Amino acid sequence: MPYRAPLADLEFLLAHVLGFDRVTATDRFAEAGPDTARAILAEAGRLAEQTLAPLNRAGDRQGARLENGIVRTPPGFAEGYRAIAEGGWVGMAARPENGGMGLPMTLATAVNEMMSGACLALQINPLLTQGQIEALEHHAPEAIRATYLPRLVSGEWGGTMNLTEPQAGSDVGALRSRAEPRGDGSYSVTGQKIYISWGDADFMPNICHLVLARLPDAAPGTAGISLFLVPKFIPDAAGNPGPRNSLSVVSLEHKLGLHGSPTCVMQYDGAQGWLVGEPHRGMAAMFTMMNNARLGVAVQGVGIAEAALQQALSHAEGRVQGRTPTGRGPITDHADVRRMLARMRAQVFSARAIALSCAVAIDMAHATGSPEWQARAAFLTPIAKAYGTDTGVEVAQMGLQVHGGMGFVEETGAAQFARDVRVTTIYEGTNGIQAMDLVARKMADGGSAAFALIDEVQAGAETARAGLPDLAGDVWQAAESLREATEVLLRQEMNDRFAGAAAYLRAFALVLGADAHLRAAHAAAGAGLAQAPARAALARVAIRRLLPEQAGLLVEMREGAAGLYALSPGDLAA
Amino acid sequence: MPYRAPLADLEFLLAHVLGFDRVTATDRFAEAGPDTARAILAEAGRLAEQTLAPLNRAGDRQGARLENGIVRTPPGFAEGYRAIAEGGWVGMAARPENGGMGLPMTLATAVNEMMSGACLALQINPLLTQGQIEALEHHAPEAIRATYLPRLVSGEWGGTMNLTEPQAGSDVGALRSRAEPRGDGSYSVTGQKIYISWGDADFMPNICHLVLARLPDAAPGTAGISLFLVPKFIPDAAGNPGPRNSLSVVSLEHKLGLHGSPTCVMQYDGAQGWLVGEPHRGMAAMFTMMNNARLGVAVQGVGIAEAALQQALSHAEGRVQGRTPTGRGPITDHADVRRMLARMRAQVFSARAIALSCAVAIDMAHATGSPEWQARAAFLTPIAKAYGTDTGVEVAQMGLQVHGGMGFVEETGAAQFARDVRVTTIYEGTNGIQAMDLVARKMADGGSAAFALIDEVQAGAETARAGLPDLAGDVWQAAESLREATEVLLRQEMNDRFAGAAAYLRAFALVLGADAHLRAAHAAAGAGLAQAPARAALARVAIRRLLPEQAGLLVEMREGAAGLYALSPGDLAA
Repeated sequence: MPYRAPLADLEFLLAHVLGFDRVTATDRFAEAGPDTARAILAEAGRLAEQTLAPLNRAGDRQGARLENGIVRTPPGFAEGYRAIAEGGWVGMAARPENGGMGLPMTLATAVNEMMSGACLALQINPLLTQGQIEALEHHAPEAIRATYLPRLVSGEWGGTMNLTEPQAGSDVGALRSRAEPRGDGSYSVTGQKIYISWGDADFMPNICHLVLARLPDAAPGTAGISLFLVPKFIPDAAGNPGPRNSLSVVSLEHKLGLHGSPTCVMQYDGAQGWLVGEPHRGMAAMFTMMNNARLGVAVQGVGIAEAALQQALSHAEGRVQGRTPTGRGPITDHADVRRMLARMRAQVFSARAIALSCAVAIDMAHATGSPEWQARAAFLTPIAKAYGTDTGVEVAQMGLQVHGGMGFVEETGAAQFARDVRVTTIYEGTNGIQAMDLVARKMADGGSAAFALIDEVQAGAETARAGLPDLAGDVWQAAESLREATEVLLRQEMNDRFAGAAAYLRAFALVLGADAHLRAAHAAAGAGLAQAPARAALARVAIRRLLPEQAGLLVEMREGAAGLYALSPGDLAA
Repeated sequence: MPYRAPLADLEFLLAHVLGFDRVTATDRFAEAGPDTARAILAEAGRLAEQTLAPLNRAGDRQGARLENGIVRTPPGFAEGYRAIAEGGWVGMAARPENGGMGLPMTLATAVNEMMSGACLALQINPLLTQGQIEALEHHAPEAIRATYLPRLVSGEWGGTMNLTEPQAGSDVGALRSRAEPRGDGSYSVTGQKIYISWGDADFMPNICHLVLARLPDAAPGTAGISLFLVPKFIPDAAGNPGPRNSLSVVSLEHKLGLHGSPTCVMQYDGAQGWLVGEPHRGMAAMFTMMNNARLGVAVQGVGIAEAALQQALSHAEGRVQGRTPTGRGPITDHADVRRMLARMRAQVFSARAIALSCAVAIDMAHATGSPEWQARAAFLTPIAKAYGTDTGVEVAQMGLQVHGGMGFVEETGAAQFARDVRVTTIYEGTNGIQAMDLVARKMADGGSAAFALIDEVQAGAETARAGLPDLAGDVWQAAESLREATEVLLRQEMNDRFAGAAAYLRAFALVLGADAHLRAAHAAAGAGLAQAPARAALARVAIRRLLPEQAGLLVEMREGAAGLYALSPGDLAA
């Protein structure tokens, strides 16, 4: 089933739910008004539908391969990548002075969702370059910026992130790769990095690796980590790729999914690199890239969820099985199948709205420098990442289930969605790490970012109450429960918070998702749109079928850690 | 990580939770007392650990292949199957007069769980033969029984189930295969069947297919379906395999998981078959096999969940990442990792207890003929199947998550568990079909089977209240909420029931699981067992972290169908 870009939903969210007009009211993003936004989304949607989506199955079946140290990418990926680059989508959020489109993150995020839904294995590549561009814009010295940024922004060269080592996964501070000064301002980088997405590609003349490593005088842990730019080919004075650097792809991982994306073990043997940011401050620079990437991964989840929903709906509309309440129609008329599809649809909308709300906050923070918007962006990032990717997994699994036996065979593509999206809850910080980030660092403000959001949800519910009293009442009450739970959480010891972190994050996401649905229904009714009844019906699904999970989550959150540590690891074995 | 048979849990459940002494107090199962049961479980555990588990990875990697119409099975599967057959495990529940061990279904189910956890792809084979044995014992004429049963019970020959056709999946009544009388008492069966697990194997001299087809005078729908036994080789007078029958394996499916199990498209071209059961009453005979198989599939889910838990725990105990509350230990010391493992452990125990409770009810029904036990067995079958297999999927997914990046690469085996178990929520009736069965056919008694279970849960809570007041109070209250919800459900129109069926089934399972944990904690304390504190701690996980989900489920159940049909299929597209 061909992928269709969800333009109607995206435009509706921009126009009616997200307050995107606040972004375009700023000087920085004044040019991204409704007509421009619509044109951009339509253009990216065409790319996703016509150029990228047709690559997805072959990418899975053929996969990337390592032949004599060279990564061979699946058929069509080179052409697909070229279309992305030529459309300007790699540098869509980069600053215009570096050759970028300067788009708001809100639009870039919407575009990333569509590219992900069409062909996730390929989309990872430009997503990583986007993050590298932002890191270099913020942290690289001018000489590096001048050489690399134009080529990265144009998509001529690509960028990767090199954090993980076998003993250093979530615990980045345990990494051992080292960098020695060469005396000419550059460094020799040595070490092995694993899980490097798109560590090589046969369709770009140079690949720039951002590598975390330790200088000789580094302190232990994360305080002793520096960031280096290590190109595959060292640029000459004119910026053209010159001598081959001392780095190589040792092997590719054999993965559950994303076969089209080469996941590399990279070996650096005294490779020449250049410092990005201050010595020993590599984590700060890397976090610029990671926060960008976390929002990107959030909409990878949303994009696959959307594609899985489309696939399941298409299958169900064409499948006749058994007597339905209306006679003998397609299985969409069976209540249980419709329940699954309606939940999928409601959840996709929630996750999409949360991710785009996070992007709006990032744009407002960039455009205004407001600490409140910065705090909101920081607070929403882990929620968007974890809920977006959990949604990807859950919706893809439910989509597979809608297919019945056909879901378990690979021909339909339903299984591929479930396989491909599975890594998104793990990479760029597992969803457990996201939850810990939320309840620790993102609550270090005493909860003010959390309470500000809860206040807004309740204000939105008050506004909607006249037209949608039941639904607004449920959302208001859920927000109140969340407020009380937040107060409890703020009084908890840190490890009690950690024990309830995943539950708290999901409870927060359910409230934010319900809020978005309620605003959508209210706005559609207020604007007298034809889709108003459907928006109200979908809001009801979100509020009466998804949101009620919150009650149980908050019970678990209040449980704290003690009960978990009453079980020894030995007690966990049967 | 090698599989370990969960003997401690199984023996504890038999001794303290399930009331298995009621089974062994019957004449029919008097010989299956504690010492026998322990010996049987230990012997099956050894088989699972030492013989079957080592086959699991190769089965996945190499897979079954079709070569010139012949299915080639993975390395070691022939020897593994022989060990199962020689141990008597194919016929373990068959009647002694047919050469079986005559074991209670409770023990057979525990054995099936262990074989599934060790190597699901192979275990499907004897599970299907078990179902065929039961169907023939109940419905086949004596000549058929005399020829086939001894060879099936011994495992010399194997059995399959042939229901599905491309247009007839959940809607079995839509099948088109046909059978014409030959005039000699046998029939010519013609048609194509899909998704036939183990439709062929290169390690058995004959395979017996139970095939649903229509006689010439058949009514449309399920009322016109008859059941035929169609052997691959037609036995001669002495019962030895004779001429090759007119049936063939057309192709194998390319599946998400279970690569070691050949899933066949079967073609019958006037193949000779014999009627099993009455003409046009094939569904009744098939349901004998399917109910047996549904419980077997329930513990396929439980078995994989157990194996996935073991794998995740083993990984986590050996993985050091970051500072934990206790310093620098394995990641099991991180609250969020421990949360995942504790939930997995609690859920596995719940699902195992529910499946074995269903088996106890089957045994009591067989041994006593009591309608109450029959009703309980019928009521628990869809719950055991759906919750057992949902547990398989959820625990395998969480186990993958515990592995972090290593979960997404295939080397650890975590991904294989998630792939293999995925079909269990689909085959033998999707979990949506199970839920519809529960709220329709299994509530046609006015809810008496449901209320009897709820009464028992509350009685158990009263018994446990003195020692475990908080937990017992929670379980009692959850049962009361379930009682109220059941009363609501019984007043609902059928399609409203269907809309809430999945939620209701899961809510019921959560209560039954919490009940089993509470009984376990109470019994362990009462018996002064060393494991009593761990049982109480695990019960707390089940009751405070799993059970609270019930509240949201019952809200969804009460929503009914109208809200779902307020959305057209078109509204489900973004």
